[in-house]
Amino acid sequence: MTAERKKNYVIGVDFGTLSARAALVCLEDGTEVSSSAMDYPHGVMTDVLPCGNVAAEPAPRLKPGSAIQDPRDYMEALEGTVRDVMNRSGVDPADVLGIAVDSTASSVLPVTEDGTPLCALDRWNNEPHAYLKLWKHHAAQDQATRIETAAKCVIEAERRSDDQAFDWLARYGNQVSAEWALPKILEVLEDNEELYCSAAYFVEAGDWIVWNLTGRKVRSSCMMGYKYFWTGIDGEDSGGGQGGYPSRDFFEAVDPRLSDFVETKLAGTILPTGSFAGTLTKEAAGLLGLAEGTAVATAIIDAHAALPALGLVGPGKMLMIMGTSTCHIIMDEKEHIVPGISGVVKDGIVPGLYAYEAGQSAVGDMFGWFVDNCVPKTYHDAVATRGITLHAFMEELAAALPPGGAGVVALDWWNGNRSILSNTDLLGAMFGLTLQTKPEEIYRALLEATAYGARVIMDAYRSHGVEIREVYASGGIPGKNPLIMQIYADVLNCPVSAAKNPPSAGLGSAIFAAAASGYYGTVEEAAGRMARQAMVVYTPDPERAKRYDVLFGVYKELHDYFGVQRPDLMKTLKE
Amino acid sequence: MTAERKKNYVIGVDFGTLSARAALVCLEDGTEVSSSAMDYPHGVMTDVLPCGNVAAEPAPRLKPGSAIQDPRDYMEALEGTVRDVMNRSGVDPADVLGIAVDSTASSVLPVTEDGTPLCALDRWNNEPHAYLKLWKHHAAQDQATRIETAAKCVIEAERRSDDQAFDWLARYGNQVSAEWALPKILEVLEDNEELYCSAAYFVEAGDWIVWNLTGRKVRSSCMMGYKYFWTGIDGEDSGGGQGGYPSRDFFEAVDPRLSDFVETKLAGTILPTGSFAGTLTKEAAGLLGLAEGTAVATAIIDAHAALPALGLVGPGKMLMIMGTSTCHIIMDEKEHIVPGISGVVKDGIVPGLYAYEAGQSAVGDMFGWFVDNCVPKTYHDAVATRGITLHAFMEELAAALPPGGAGVVALDWWNGNRSILSNTDLLGAMFGLTLQTKPEEIYRALLEATAYGARVIMDAYRSHGVEIREVYASGGIPGKNPLIMQIYADVLNCPVSAAKNPPSAGLGSAIFAAAASGYYGTVEEAAGRMARQAMVVYTPDPERAKRYDVLFGVYKELHDYFGVQRPDLMKTLKE
Repeated sequence: MTAERKKNYVIGVDFGTLSARAALVCLEDGTEVSSSAMDYPHGVMTDVLPCGNVAAEPAPRLKPGSAIQDPRDYMEALEGTVRDVMNRSGVDPADVLGIAVDSTASSVLPVTEDGTPLCALDRWNNEPHAYLKLWKHHAAQDQATRIETAAKCVIEAERRSDDQAFDWLARYGNQVSAEWALPKILEVLEDNEELYCSAAYFVEAGDWIVWNLTGRKVRSSCMMGYKYFWTGIDGEDSGGGQGGYPSRDFFEAVDPRLSDFVETKLAGTILPTGSFAGTLTKEAAGLLGLAEGTAVATAIIDAHAALPALGLVGPGKMLMIMGTSTCHIIMDEKEHIVPGISGVVKDGIVPGLYAYEAGQSAVGDMFGWFVDNCVPKTYHDAVATRGITLHAFMEELAAALPPGGAGVVALDWWNGNRSILSNTDLLGAMFGLTLQTKPEEIYRALLEATAYGARVIMDAYRSHGVEIREVYASGGIPGKNPLIMQIYADVLNCPVSAAKNPPSAGLGSAIFAAAASGYYGTVEEAAGRMARQAMVVYTPDPERAKRYDVLFGVYKELHDYFGVQRPDLMKTLKE
Repeated sequence: MTAERKKNYVIGVDFGTLSARAALVCLEDGTEVSSSAMDYPHGVMTDVLPCGNVAAEPAPRLKPGSAIQDPRDYMEALEGTVRDVMNRSGVDPADVLGIAVDSTASSVLPVTEDGTPLCALDRWNNEPHAYLKLWKHHAAQDQATRIETAAKCVIEAERRSDDQAFDWLARYGNQVSAEWALPKILEVLEDNEELYCSAAYFVEAGDWIVWNLTGRKVRSSCMMGYKYFWTGIDGEDSGGGQGGYPSRDFFEAVDPRLSDFVETKLAGTILPTGSFAGTLTKEAAGLLGLAEGTAVATAIIDAHAALPALGLVGPGKMLMIMGTSTCHIIMDEKEHIVPGISGVVKDGIVPGLYAYEAGQSAVGDMFGWFVDNCVPKTYHDAVATRGITLHAFMEELAAALPPGGAGVVALDWWNGNRSILSNTDLLGAMFGLTLQTKPEEIYRALLEATAYGARVIMDAYRSHGVEIREVYASGGIPGKNPLIMQIYADVLNCPVSAAKNPPSAGLGSAIFAAAASGYYGTVEEAAGRMARQAMVVYTPDPERAKRYDVLFGVYKELHDYFGVQRPDLMKTLKE
């Protein structure tokens, strides 16, 4: 009988839109020992607040575009999933060397001085603004537009007095998205100043979890870099005198009441992504059934955690994380200004590299919309006979068509456009319909439209100096939809390596936990040992690629007309 | 017992796209005594020619966009329906004072010197070009484009040498449609010159029927005016020296082989619409079971026959004939040049008035496309439970929406655009789609798009001097679809009088037969006695009309961008 070598473990917890998923992972080789998922009890609230205060009747209705959550659901899911992975594995808590979390962003909540969410107070629990505003809360588009204008005016004024003044907005594609933090926080201020004043801090969901675990108000450079206009690179101040944030003039221009916003509401230490944030407090250790003193890493945005999980820790490798929406992440050794991307953050994922992010707001969501709304009965009947899914049936029919089907092209803006137009007022469109158009032609056009959208983003990266040597795809779509991946290879005209399965939820965070625990010296080293992914490589067909060049030309013209020259047309329709 | 007063009758026969319908009508008051319909045995051939020559294998395939028919089907249907109305009525053939026909146009066929269709000859019966090219045969778009260019060049050259030179193309909206005669005939010449040379004449289906009935090669001013560039008003030559047709220079510019086209292939007497063309030959009388010598009127285009049938024989009354497509006809005392309409013909319907025609290529067809292709299973299930039609169910859901639904606007070009762009390369489009868009919003957008299309046409008429005092609607749609008619009233912002039922097929022709028989002195008098129609008046709602003004503004911008500024975009998709 040989003595079993003692193993070490880490836990990564992924906080998604609807659920949290924990993974207990072996530190030596990344093997997942156990995993557990739990839906948030209150899910996403979009219409009405399920409030605990029985005196409130009727329940408060939410503004159109709202997407809010109860942050206590996050802690409940954290406790439930971590205890579950431990119970199911039988691992000794003492052998768990670290824990880390990733979460959606900007998913922001107002808290008291000690980190209690305002919605947990009787005083505020009927007030929607006291809850967590989820990344896809779109009620602050008007605020985003005004913030963008204010930023441009202040930067222009600063440049007039100092031609070396730092243009921080350029790092965010010269745009402000309603999905970022400041528009959401300004919405709170404008709708309920009293509540705004009652909030000691505004904090990202992921950072709030770390605070709950460590007792330390540590913010992640990833969260603050991508979602809060924080550009505090290499410890240098960006010029505004606010430790990496834009100048006080900017915040005052947005609203005079934001004059002290940075030093008050955003107080806290910003640490690089995945670095050591602290150790589990006695209380947190008790809650989770782990050992006090276990290392905790700073949080990371969920999408960004996919790169280390896939072992993509070097420059030049673009990863498309394709699910309901798509996120396009790439790292580069240098900083480039790329208009219309969501952000570029130094050390945003891996220390020493600039991490770039761009996004498409509706991908799988759009295919789902089609299948829910536009598939005729005869197709349902065929599917029922054959026992396959509607998506599979549509993909089969669409696969038999040539590029562009019979000439249908769509603008993939069913949920607005994130990159490179950053305009949530844009709307989906279809062109080329005839009396002969079949549903599968429309379906194929929607698949292709998302590929064209990805090409616009790739072109923007490249034409502004970000080198793309390899293209990878992960998320829910690539492993299951070979037609889509082939279309992407043909439209992008380059090989696309698709992960057979998305990386296990929590694996990316677990790699950061491993680095934070000190077991490995760097994130790269941890990723090199712990990440393993099977890939399928799709290579472009020259004939189809040529045909797609023509169709992409049409897409680009439509994109520029409706997105750049005449965005007012769709805005009028939206109104 | 009172002596029954002897009555007199006329027969009108309507040659539609798929069938012919005959009506035996009382001359005194327009009462329909009996009616009969018969489908054409070969229907519309779009893919393959069902040829009688067994030696031909495989059957000849047709060019994309083809829509051809066997003209012998028309004679078979004429015989069948006329004999049927006579048999069922018991009327004495001697009491039938006249017969007239209306037909689709330009539906053109090549014939021998004695009027035999070339397709009836063994020599040509495997050749698609020997058959009748139906109005909706769209294979000659390229020819139409070249003819338009040639016309513009020649007219420009003629004007340079004589600033009074007649601009005949202006009467056709400065455009040439592929649905007119010359593009179709040029297609024959270019594809099969031998067949073209074998044809003694090219003749319209309606005129060919009249020829068969009377033995006289009489052409109708309505057919020649709207579909053959014939502008021979008041017996004056239009300047080209070819009796009302464009100059020889024009035809030579189109193709040198067309130099003698007018005097050879178009030979025949042109008579005003609905005037006396001749009497039934012995042979024709025998075929139909009518009396030799019965008066026969010149033919009229089917859509135009609807005006007298509805009693609309004065100026300022626009009639929209709404079915699979829509035709917009109005008469005016003066001639105005209206760009983009299908034509203006003096005496085109009623002697002494200029008859204007414009059209939308897809209306009911587009709604049918939607119901066939885009209605999800859950809706089918609901319909099955309630026992109503899908159209009725969609109309019910769409009726509950506000104007524009949630902001979807469509370009109604599913079958190209006839007026005012005259471009069959244009394609349908939809704008304003989101993840929340429901099928009924798209359905309502399609209904609205056709109303916007009608408004563009009405605006074109009005802004070029054609006064529109009243708007009427007839055809298959108005009596059955109150929502559509209300949308039209709101979008056009004027009352719309909708015929409860379309006029009986054949009634319009029967009124012309009555005038040709001499029983009445004029078409107006005959229409005044014989036409009777129940109308429902839809009045606009001021609030909705205001909202539609905004939405129409968006439609018009899209219309102008894709139709006028950048027609190349959709052309690229079509290719």
